[in-house]
Amino acid sequence: MNSNKIPEPALRRLPWYLSYVKLLKSQGEKYVSSTKIAKKIDVSASQIAKDLSFVEISGKTRVGYDIDELINVLDTFLGFKVIHKAVLFGVGSLGAALLSDSGLEQYGLKIIAGFDVNKSVVDTKIHDIPVYHSDEFIQMNKEIDAEIGILTVPSGVAQEVSDYMISGGIKGVWNFTPFRIRVPSGIVLQNTSLYAHLAVMFNRLDS
Amino acid sequence: MNSNKIPEPALRRLPWYLSYVKLLKSQGEKYVSSTKIAKKIDVSASQIAKDLSFVEISGKTRVGYDIDELINVLDTFLGFKVIHKAVLFGVGSLGAALLSDSGLEQYGLKIIAGFDVNKSVVDTKIHDIPVYHSDEFIQMNKEIDAEIGILTVPSGVAQEVSDYMISGGIKGVWNFTPFRIRVPSGIVLQNTSLYAHLAVMFNRLDS
Repeated sequence: MNSNKIPEPALRRLPWYLSYVKLLKSQGEKYVSSTKIAKKIDVSASQIAKDLSFVEISGKTRVGYDIDELINVLDTFLGFKVIHKAVLFGVGSLGAALLSDSGLEQYGLKIIAGFDVNKSVVDTKIHDIPVYHSDEFIQMNKEIDAEIGILTVPSGVAQEVSDYMISGGIKGVWNFTPFRIRVPSGIVLQNTSLYAHLAVMFNRLDS
Repeated sequence: MNSNKIPEPALRRLPWYLSYVKLLKSQGEKYVSSTKIAKKIDVSASQIAKDLSFVEISGKTRVGYDIDELINVLDTFLGFKVIHKAVLFGVGSLGAALLSDSGLEQYGLKIIAGFDVNKSVVDTKIHDIPVYHSDEFIQMNKEIDAEIGILTVPSGVAQEVSDYMISGGIKGVWNFTPFRIRVPSGIVLQNTSLYAHLAVMFNRLDS
C-alpha cells in the first residue's frame, strides 16, 4: 500500500467514488469505468483513474473496474473496515449530538467515552456511551487506548483541551470548534467547522 | 457590502479570526492587530489584512482593530446575526443528531422541521422540532418558507431528495451525505462529509 503517498485532495475524493459505486451495486451493476463515474461525479475521468491508481485495483480493458472489488478495496483503503477508538471532549449540544450518531461506527469510528467538566453530564450516559470527568482521562486512556480525540468544547478552551488529549496519548484530533488549534508534528489534525460551512452558505445566499 | 466578491477560501478563514478575537475579548483585550492574529492562527498578517478588507472595518495605526467592532462586523458579515430558516431531510442517526444540536441556532441556523418517509419517526418530535412525512414538504414550505435544506438521507436517494427540496423552494443545500449531488445554477451547495474527514484522519494515522 502506498497510502502515505496519496495527496489529501485525492483522498477526499475517494469517498465520493465509493458512495457512487455502492449506489451502482444496489442497482445491479457489475462493472464501472472511470468515464462513467466522471459523468456522475463532476471530476474528469483521467483524474479519477489517477486517484484510483493510489489504491490496489486495476480496471479491465473495455469493462472497467469490478464493482464488488472496488468497493472492498476503497472501504479498506479509507480505513472504514477497521474500528478506530475515539473519545470525545465537550459533551455540550454538538458533542452530545455526535455521541448519538451511531452512523459513525459504520465508517470505522467507535466513540468509547465522553469527557466533560460539567457536573450535569459527568457520570451520565448518552446513547449508551459513558461520560466521565475530564480529569479522569489520562489514567483512563491507559486502558481505553483511544487514538482519536473529538473536540467539541467551547472555543476558549479548545487549545488547552487539545494539548491535554495529546498528553494522554491521542494521535489524531478531530476539531469541530471554530478555533484554529495547533498540534505538534506527528499528530494528525482534521478540522470540521460546521460554522464555516454555514458562513459560506449564508454569504452566498444573501448576496 | 461587497460580500459577493469575497472568495470562498477567505470566507472560510473569517470564522477563525472571529473565534480568536472573541477569546481575546473574554480575556479583557480591547484592540488586536493582524500581526497578533497571525501569530495565533497560522495565516500571514498580510493575508489576514486582505481577508478583513472584504468586511467594513478599518484598523487604526499602531493599535489595530477595535475588538468589539471587529466581532460585530464579522458576526454580521458571516450571517450569524440573522435567523436563516432550514428544514432537514432524513431523520436517521446523523439527522436526529443535528436536530438535537441547538448550537446551530446561535450561528443563525434555525431548523424548523424534519422530514422523513419512515413511519417510526414521522409525526414525532426531536428536541421539540416536529418531523413530518416528506410528501408534505412542498405544501408545507409555502408557509414555513425555509431557504436552506439539510440533507442527511441515505446516499442512494441524495440526488432525488435534493431535487425535491429545490422544487419546494429551497435555495441552499447543505449536503452531509458522502454522495456528490448536483444542483442547478443559482442554488448554493455546501458539502460537509464527515466520512471524508474521517478517511483522511484514518489514512494519515495508519500510514
